Amino acid sequence: MTRYEEVAATLRERIEHGIYRVGDRLPSIRAVCQELNVSISTAQEAYRQLMDTALIESRPKSGYFVLPSRAPSVLPSISRPAQRPLDISQWDQVLELVATQRDDERLLLGRGVPNFEYETLRPLSKTLASLHRSNDLHGFNYDKLSGSPELRQQVARLAITSGCLLHPDDIVITTGCQEALSIALRTLTQPGDVVAVDSPSFYGTMQILKANGLKALEIPTDPQTGISLEALELALEQWPIRAIQITPTFNNPLGYTMPEARKRALFQLAQRFDVAIIEDDIYGDLSFSLPRPRTVKSFDDDGRVMLCSGFSKTVGPGLRVGWLAPGRYRDQALHMKYVSTGASATLPQLAVAEFVAKGHYERHVRFATRQYQRQRDIMISWVQRYFPKGAGISYPQGSFLLWVELPAAVDGVRLNQRLAQHAIHVAPGSLFSASGKFRQCLRLNYAFTLTPEIEAAVRTVGEFATEMVEEAQGHAVGVN
Amino acid sequence: MTRYEEVAATLRERIEHGIYRVGDRLPSIRAVCQELNVSISTAQEAYRQLMDTALIESRPKSGYFVLPSRAPSVLPSISRPAQRPLDISQWDQVLELVATQRDDERLLLGRGVPNFEYETLRPLSKTLASLHRSNDLHGFNYDKLSGSPELRQQVARLAITSGCLLHPDDIVITTGCQEALSIALRTLTQPGDVVAVDSPSFYGTMQILKANGLKALEIPTDPQTGISLEALELALEQWPIRAIQITPTFNNPLGYTMPEARKRALFQLAQRFDVAIIEDDIYGDLSFSLPRPRTVKSFDDDGRVMLCSGFSKTVGPGLRVGWLAPGRYRDQALHMKYVSTGASATLPQLAVAEFVAKGHYERHVRFATRQYQRQRDIMISWVQRYFPKGAGISYPQGSFLLWVELPAAVDGVRLNQRLAQHAIHVAPGSLFSASGKFRQCLRLNYAFTLTPEIEAAVRTVGEFATEMVEEAQGHAVGVN
Repeated sequence: MTRYEEVAATLRERIEHGIYRVGDRLPSIRAVCQELNVSISTAQEAYRQLMDTALIESRPKSGYFVLPSRAPSVLPSISRPAQRPLDISQWDQVLELVATQRDDERLLLGRGVPNFEYETLRPLSKTLASLHRSNDLHGFNYDKLSGSPELRQQVARLAITSGCLLHPDDIVITTGCQEALSIALRTLTQPGDVVAVDSPSFYGTMQILKANGLKALEIPTDPQTGISLEALELALEQWPIRAIQITPTFNNPLGYTMPEARKRALFQLAQRFDVAIIEDDIYGDLSFSLPRPRTVKSFDDDGRVMLCSGFSKTVGPGLRVGWLAPGRYRDQALHMKYVSTGASATLPQLAVAEFVAKGHYERHVRFATRQYQRQRDIMISWVQRYFPKGAGISYPQGSFLLWVELPAAVDGVRLNQRLAQHAIHVAPGSLFSASGKFRQCLRLNYAFTLTPEIEAAVRTVGEFATEMVEEAQGHAVGVN
Repeated sequence: MTRYEEVAATLRERIEHGIYRVGDRLPSIRAVCQELNVSISTAQEAYRQLMDTALIESRPKSGYFVLPSRAPSVLPSISRPAQRPLDISQWDQVLELVATQRDDERLLLGRGVPNFEYETLRPLSKTLASLHRSNDLHGFNYDKLSGSPELRQQVARLAITSGCLLHPDDIVITTGCQEALSIALRTLTQPGDVVAVDSPSFYGTMQILKANGLKALEIPTDPQTGISLEALELALEQWPIRAIQITPTFNNPLGYTMPEARKRALFQLAQRFDVAIIEDDIYGDLSFSLPRPRTVKSFDDDGRVMLCSGFSKTVGPGLRVGWLAPGRYRDQALHMKYVSTGASATLPQLAVAEFVAKGHYERHVRFATRQYQRQRDIMISWVQRYFPKGAGISYPQGSFLLWVELPAAVDGVRLNQRLAQHAIHVAPGSLFSASGKFRQCLRLNYAFTLTPEIEAAVRTVGEFATEMVEEAQGHAVGVN
């Protein structure tokens, strides 16, 4: 055994014994040199070997980190939804998840909110406080219907990083991304129309379809590359699809990011069949690597993509600052905006504009995504340790949401009923389907600061899930 | 001439010479005694005589005020709309009014916003600043879907003054009253349905009808007592009306307030024909006398009234804090709320709740309405002085909006085109009709602090209107 192999073995042993845990930062090269009395090149070589075996990874400017002990070799399945337009159900379950967020006594492991505890958000609070303190009271007046020019300018600047060249006048500020999605769907459709969606798909959008009497056509979706373009093409040939609604970057809940070539191909397909695309990019800025992935909108040369985004997942949903780039549908979208809520609130727009303009936004997002990447790995290691064997786990390259596919015996809704006694709640997979599919799936949030309490909750979820699997096996044995 | 008649004559002379102008507060009884060397009872008798001739009025705890020199003897006409369901047009004109409120260089004489300059609003700014300063950042999280419990409690408390006993759980906080109206209409109707409205009617609601493919059935409306119940009954017999949408208190734009007995009769009519009522009460708290008028909702014993209101006209529309009491339609309304914008912004709700809880709201409304009442009289006197003879003028008992009906030769839209060179804009009457009626009418705002600049602008509007009347007469003469 060479010297560097000895060093690597020592470090591997410490990782296996849990001295360095998943997501921890390892000692620096310099520290290893001093502790084990080796040269810098020997320590570097040892670290390289650990990286080769996927035990650790290097992150620019941050150091070396312990990876999940087994990389998630089992991904969730490719979905195979019923390929016909469906009415949407599942409102009761969605209501249970969204109705009681603030002050909820339960631990909402499946919630869709970012971490608000990072100090990098503090400048926004300060700006809001100072705007209100110095307010000449005209902040109580209506803002422009399309939104504050200051904020639209900053949004246009940020959109460049996703490959979009937008003019501030191409943007309409909305009351959260939910309003942007709602406006986009209402602009493009009439009741009874069919909308193609990925599957699983964000429940918020599904409920907009429901409220507007629209039908969802769920398209098979791959957990790595996203919506199947082949299946989508067949569907476009077969059904009168009015719009394609999709979250192609750091998808909620499945975690996929469509490769750039597929995004371009999706746009070309929409162009060929002359349908519009509603692109939800609310997670797009939360990329674990830079530059962030391009949007489908960035390929849009004829204005058919309505890009929906906002600051709810990067800054905070309680501000309700979203935006819409409605492309060629601007006039109708502005009318829908007016009838929906009128102009959006004035001072939050000015505060977010200043937060972005002064560089606080990029700093905050950089900090948050570093935490989320580390916490993704920790959450994956917990799921691998505590959940039934063979669980499929997504491996998102951004954002803070994990999708877990359990054995068929597990039912997310029934699981929640059992978890209620422990005041734990997960997002059951059936929320994400028009037809109640994905019952055996869960969405978990890893934006939490991952305390032992959270670990215990994840373990409890795993134990109950295992119990359900064992009950089913016992039942099967009993039947035999 | 008795001594008190001499005192009255002196004061009358001063009013007629403009020493005391319309809306001014007269010297106190005590001051008159000292100045004119008379007894208190003589001064009181003189003031009583001036009140008897409607030259001045007494306001509790405020003193004596000069009334418009001629009370507006000519009211606007009772409307006679086409009594069949109509599609709504007029979006372009509405857009022009609402698209560019903040930083608009023009003087928007027809705008629908309250005065933000009153110091009684200051505690709200302070509360917002302090909430943001002390924010543990959880204010960036979603609030409850139905709204913050603190605010719903205060809204329930305020609603008592309108005769409503609401539980906080009967209330859904919305993003402005516009969202409440939008949710109510979407909850009750399907595209193609007919909604009965007063006429003229608020353009914001009309545009919601348009966006949802609804038809408006405009009902004849009296400028003093409101929507004609007789015409409404005939309409209910003849058409499949799904809902009655109405602003029965300090109506926008016509200024009427339905007497209590008629409000009760309206509810009974709706009950008899089993239709729902959407009641817009956004101006209801801005009453010039106390107690404020009751709502139709206060008669609602079976939950068919969806009461829409908020803080946009009392506090400030830029906060976007509205509310809905959806009655028996709560479940569907909550679904519509979710798909529309999700939960409303968190901290503005908490700030408004505190503003109300600490009594600042009532203090502010009391102060503002005292100003508005005085400014109503001044604005009426200007319209009487500067507008063409025979103009019909509303006489609202609350809020800050005046409706002026000019001779048929005047067209509000063309008037605005001429006013553009002076950077003045009024709200043309045709905005308030599905079918472009009320072209010769205008809405004016008297919430402004009424400076000589505003007076000059009103005079300019009057001059252009007179010009249009004279052109038409000249043309008529030429034709003869």
